[in-house]
Amino acid sequence: MQLKMDATSLEAFIAREFPQVAQDFSVDEVGEELVVRMHVHERHLRPGGTVSGPNMFALADVGIYLAILSRLGPVALAVTTGASVDFMRKPEAGRDLVAKVRLLKLGRVLAVGDVLIYSDGQTEPVARASMTYSIPPQAGQGPESATGRR
Amino acid sequence: MQLKMDATSLEAFIAREFPQVAQDFSVDEVGEELVVRMHVHERHLRPGGTVSGPNMFALADVGIYLAILSRLGPVALAVTTGASVDFMRKPEAGRDLVAKVRLLKLGRVLAVGDVLIYSDGQTEPVARASMTYSIPPQAGQGPESATGRR
Amino acid sequence: MQLKMDATSLEAFIAREFPQVAQDFSVDEVGEELVVRMHVHERHLRPGGTVSGPNMFALADVGIYLAILSRLGPVALAVTTGASVDFMRKPEAGRDLVAKVRLLKLGRVLAVGDVLIYSDGQTEPVARASMTYSIPPQAGQGPESATGRR
Amino acid sequence: MQLKMDATSLEAFIAREFPQVAQDFSVDEVGEELVVRMHVHERHLRPGGTVSGPNMFALADVGIYLAILSRLGPVALAVTTGASVDFMRKPEAGRDLVAKVRLLKLGRVLAVGDVLIYSDGQTEPVARASMTYSIPPQAGQGPESATGRR
Repeated sequence: MQLKMDATSLEAFIAREFPQVAQDFSVDEVGEELVVRMHVHERHLRPGGTVSGPNMFALADVGIYLAILSRLGPVALAVTTGASVDFMRKPEAGRDLVAKVRLLKLGRVLAVGDVLIYSDGQTEPVARASMTYSIPPQAGQGPESATGRR
Repeated sequence: MQLKMDATSLEAFIAREFPQVAQDFSVDEVGEELVVRMHVHERHLRPGGTVSGPNMFALADVGIYLAILSRLGPVALAVTTGASVDFMRKPEAGRDLVAKVRLLKLGRVLAVGDVLIYSDGQTEPVARASMTYSIPPQAGQGPESATGRR
Repeated sequence: MQLKMDATSLEAFIAREFPQVAQDFSVDEVGEELVVRMHVHERHLRPGGTVSGPNMFALADVGIYLAILSRLGPVALAVTTGASVDFMRKPEAGRDLVAKVRLLKLGRVLAVGDVLIYSDGQTEPVARASMTYSIPPQAGQGPESATGRR
Repeated sequence: MQLKMDATSLEAFIAREFPQVAQDFSVDEVGEELVVRMHVHERHLRPGGTVSGPNMFALADVGIYLAILSRLGPVALAVTTGASVDFMRKPEAGRDLVAKVRLLKLGRVLAVGDVLIYSDGQTEPVARASMTYSIPPQAGQGPESATGRR
């Protein structure tokens, strides 16, 4: 496994391509496992003070997407085609969420990753997710652009 | 199948329990099939002008949740435990999304529904999703409360 | 939607390419919806007399695969890349299973279908499944061959 | 985590409750991670010599089921309610499949596990799966019985 982007360059990429959500995420680690943090704010919460399902979906999606970019470089054209999520425990109120991502396949056409999401500092995951991405033909060679990204 | 809530009462429920997102959704039909509309605004979009994956996830989740409520009444305690989503086509820019929901099982403990999401006016779905909900023991008998909802 | 294979040619295809399982399945209908029947035998059952989960998975997989073939012709190279299944009710002992298949997407690279499985004659589904298939570049033009099929 | 069954007792349980499939599986390890081996025979194969999708589904299902039993004891009533699988690489012909299972949640009502499946001796997984099980109220206290198992 060779890495083409580190935490700083992944965060810069997100800031440039997805400015609306960039402030929510930071990259804690890049390597065999990639660790992304979601800074939990009031707007992510549902009644009861826990992070909503769609926000956990977004965290998983960003995490696996960044794991793909860390290997392919800033090509920005991978598109999520499928996802499965299990919500297993209620996130703790007032804590960030931390997603630990494994890239299980990075093929010519499809990539697959999975992720465990934790309330920061806890040992039991609040959710698991696996997602599949379609890799466009030009990825790895073409100039960077995110316009095809869902 | 007996309905306990109509479109007006479902929308009132959403407005009361989930005020942050209520303005995004309206209920077009309630029956064997429940139809929910997502009013697409700038904040739902990704570069390229299409609705983001997490927002389609949210639409599916709200739709199946409302289909459960329409049968059980406003008990508000069902919790999403699992979800699978396939993103199949790019939503059309500038169109609402319309989710057509079927409730496939409403058991004592678990409910399962699935949904096809369309760009308004189009005939081919942009996404499909299926979701499972855990129904708490008191559902159907207890007073209404949404604090347990993720 | 144009059909390239009817029930008889689909069954002949299965008999030729998958002789080990061909006797288990028959095609009841081909059209917008494709209906496949699984002839339930002793070997499909678990203790208690119901069809096992892996056999329902196999039925869904065969059903969606045949729906793809009915549109593409006997190209036989689609490979299942992802699946999600919900088991919702216990199948009735001593009844065939009937799978009703919809093809939701037939793209250049990926196809997606979903299926509801019923105990024959019942109105409530025992399971739902959705599956994704990778379509190889040569599909639709090349000579027929099933050697790449999982 | 406390273990109530070891590899020998899990294999004895399978032999007694699921005699039809017991010869296909053996338990290599029980612990935080449970490792189950599928002895690949001619009947598991599709044209081309690789293990079929339904057989990989069966391996994942057995593996997570055994991980639940290893914690709960031989109660035998957990029922698979949901599954998602990604098929990522073609299994190698002529090799056993080895499933590495993690139990992510063992709740009062639901259990969730995930699994990576490898061709024996290879480092890249051929498939991943996650599955959800419904745990009946009496599990952990009642006498052992497998008749409710799908």
